[in-house]
Amino acid sequence: MTERFENMENEIISMLEQKQYAALREILSQMNPADIAEIFSELEQRQIPLLFRLLPKETAAEAFAEMESEAQEVLIRGFSDNELKELLDELYADDAADLAEEMPANVVKRILRQATPEMRSAINQILRYPEYSAGSIMTTEYVSLRPQMTVGESILRIRRQGVDKETIYTCYVTQGRKLLGLVTVKDLLLCGDDETLVEDVMLTNLICVNTHTDQEEVARMFSKYNFLALPVVDMENRMVGIVTFDDAMDVMEEETTEDMELMGGMLPSEKTYLRSSAWELFKNRIPWLLLLMISATFTGMIITSFEGALAAQAALTAFIPMLMGTGGNSGSQSSVTVIRALSLGELDLDDLPRVIWKEIRTAVLCGVALAVVCFVKIWLIDRLLLGNTQITLLVDAVVCLALAVTVLVAKLVGAILPIGAKLLKLDPAVMASPFITSIVDALSLLVYFLFARLLLGV
Amino acid sequence: MTERFENMENEIISMLEQKQYAALREILSQMNPADIAEIFSELEQRQIPLLFRLLPKETAAEAFAEMESEAQEVLIRGFSDNELKELLDELYADDAADLAEEMPANVVKRILRQATPEMRSAINQILRYPEYSAGSIMTTEYVSLRPQMTVGESILRIRRQGVDKETIYTCYVTQGRKLLGLVTVKDLLLCGDDETLVEDVMLTNLICVNTHTDQEEVARMFSKYNFLALPVVDMENRMVGIVTFDDAMDVMEEETTEDMELMGGMLPSEKTYLRSSAWELFKNRIPWLLLLMISATFTGMIITSFEGALAAQAALTAFIPMLMGTGGNSGSQSSVTVIRALSLGELDLDDLPRVIWKEIRTAVLCGVALAVVCFVKIWLIDRLLLGNTQITLLVDAVVCLALAVTVLVAKLVGAILPIGAKLLKLDPAVMASPFITSIVDALSLLVYFLFARLLLGV
Repeated sequence: MTERFENMENEIISMLEQKQYAALREILSQMNPADIAEIFSELEQRQIPLLFRLLPKETAAEAFAEMESEAQEVLIRGFSDNELKELLDELYADDAADLAEEMPANVVKRILRQATPEMRSAINQILRYPEYSAGSIMTTEYVSLRPQMTVGESILRIRRQGVDKETIYTCYVTQGRKLLGLVTVKDLLLCGDDETLVEDVMLTNLICVNTHTDQEEVARMFSKYNFLALPVVDMENRMVGIVTFDDAMDVMEEETTEDMELMGGMLPSEKTYLRSSAWELFKNRIPWLLLLMISATFTGMIITSFEGALAAQAALTAFIPMLMGTGGNSGSQSSVTVIRALSLGELDLDDLPRVIWKEIRTAVLCGVALAVVCFVKIWLIDRLLLGNTQITLLVDAVVCLALAVTVLVAKLVGAILPIGAKLLKLDPAVMASPFITSIVDALSLLVYFLFARLLLGV
Repeated sequence: MTERFENMENEIISMLEQKQYAALREILSQMNPADIAEIFSELEQRQIPLLFRLLPKETAAEAFAEMESEAQEVLIRGFSDNELKELLDELYADDAADLAEEMPANVVKRILRQATPEMRSAINQILRYPEYSAGSIMTTEYVSLRPQMTVGESILRIRRQGVDKETIYTCYVTQGRKLLGLVTVKDLLLCGDDETLVEDVMLTNLICVNTHTDQEEVARMFSKYNFLALPVVDMENRMVGIVTFDDAMDVMEEETTEDMELMGGMLPSEKTYLRSSAWELFKNRIPWLLLLMISATFTGMIITSFEGALAAQAALTAFIPMLMGTGGNSGSQSSVTVIRALSLGELDLDDLPRVIWKEIRTAVLCGVALAVVCFVKIWLIDRLLLGNTQITLLVDAVVCLALAVTVLVAKLVGAILPIGAKLLKLDPAVMASPFITSIVDALSLLVYFLFARLLLGV
């Protein structure tokens, strides 16, 4: 599939170079706008306007909306005022607002100058809402009906007005801008009697979001309720727009990527991997690396202060990586699970006691199992097979006791920190493996040397 | 929002206990099926059939489809044959197939016995396809049109047949079961002339999937193309069903959770966190913990074999956790980025050289920056502030050189292993931080002791 698409991509680029415009026009007219947009990201700057002019008018706008902002900027800078006006007429308001958000100021001015007054006010309205809010991803183009219309009149209205609306399948019943209910086209079409009033078929137990609702929350509602669109109301409960399922899917994908980047100890970025330069990757990655490297000063201090113990029992040093590694892994298991459950809305803040209790029981099971296996492994492999005679039964016991306690501590830290972050209104994903590993590293060393002092008297 | 919902949940449960059935019926009739389904997971077994009987018939089936399988099983076991038949009539074929997949064999037999012959054959057809394939998540209930129908006839057909179809908004034009094209209800409604033939308005450049296409690939196509539904064809290119966007959203969520669980070093599980017992969590977490603990034998062996060096230069031990930690973090940054790019389809296998080159440049930048800061930090804090006189300029240099090389190695390992896993048809997410940390731990120690031998002669 992907391979076939890549061949096609290469063919189109070479046809463009050989100026086979008629044949190209034919091929492009058969392609999906999302696929066309992908080709634009492979073109050189001078080829971009060339290929764009070969697209059928309607496809052109759809493909434009899907392009990356670099290609969009090249195109707009090359457009005449008239061409820009035509494009804007074909775009949906939310796509036009996205565009305005990403272009430099002088391009935005040109866009607003060429837009129709309605489009201009729609763009401005959407741009007014905070980034990542429902208002910023909504579109203002939806079908509205009045409660006193009949089903027949409603269908007629949809047939007349629908062409400019992002979705016609869910229509909103409003009066004086107040949202009263919704009807789907399915309900209208399947309603036996065209004379029925809209208010008699509309759904009134509405689920809607506020303009300031976080986009992550909006996406979560889509995946829970399976809606095609969700109405957005302002503080006075007046309907201002709709969010459609495709935008919600994009948000889901973005937010997941952001969570994963945070969990991997990086600053989130909106650029794809291949589009990011090494310098940009460096800037996203170095802050956490520096912070965690410097915080490792503590583990260094702990080891230095137990230097005497390590000198007296040289075998102890060899198990430091295993202890810290297992502690880190145990902690990151818990934190990943809790972070994901929080972001899916499965966990609430008041579930904290249940989470702690569950993690304690899991940690005891894991800790005991690991300690037993480790005890046997150290004796059989390290002592008998590899013949390390510094390892006594007591050293083995110190390692395994420390291991069990480390697992318990790690799992508790891993589960509690993300919930704590949520309490402080931070993104729980920040509290993932790199961060937790650093804390657990220090704690596991302390536990280790404590047992060593207790049992070995070093 | 969530809090309000929880209050409502508690109120409903207490009304149920106080037998206020009439009032309950009223409240439930105003609620969304997905919310109702959530309440069922909070009920005791004996309360489940009680509340279910209070639901309006249509809501009941929708809520049932959203419930967790425990509640579904309790309900079915309590149903009379007639009640089961009524429920099955209201369910969509894909939901009925999901149900059959999760129930124990004797319940499945009862389901198939009570289903209508059409439903039975639809369930059986869906169950025949491999798990996680497009066939297993599709529904067989879609609207099909003939190419020779007029737009007016098509609208009439939709109005007559639509009630049982999962979506009516995308209709498929078939002839002798071969898929020729699609029309949306929007196209039909907005078409000015009712006498136009379907074949003249239908879209023929179709994007469809095969019954055996992996569900992750299907979900990716939804998020790329913004479809409401995607047609599924068999090996002979005959249309057999559709996948709808809501099922694709569920798949996206499931696959992301699975990726995150793998990346956290756990076996993936289909149960939510709070529903999983400590024993189940233990079983998912212990395999990787055991494996990684035992693989740490290598790091132990490396340290043991350099015991002499550590004894001669005691200061070296203190920096082991910092080196391994920074290596692990660097590697997991790269692996998380590459795993996510692979799962979004942004990276292909033949991008490997570009990935390696990008990681090398990023690693050099990160490595140099970290080494410089680390050199200064060790001298200022560890030597001057904390007064550790064992640290000479040469020791400092060994640590920082090892750090820079470790970062480079870690980033390469982190980027290459997930792509390697993909080449071997494994899930790249397996090659995430816990696994990579174990490899990088061993490599960073080797690098460290190599530099120590070279520069300090120990």
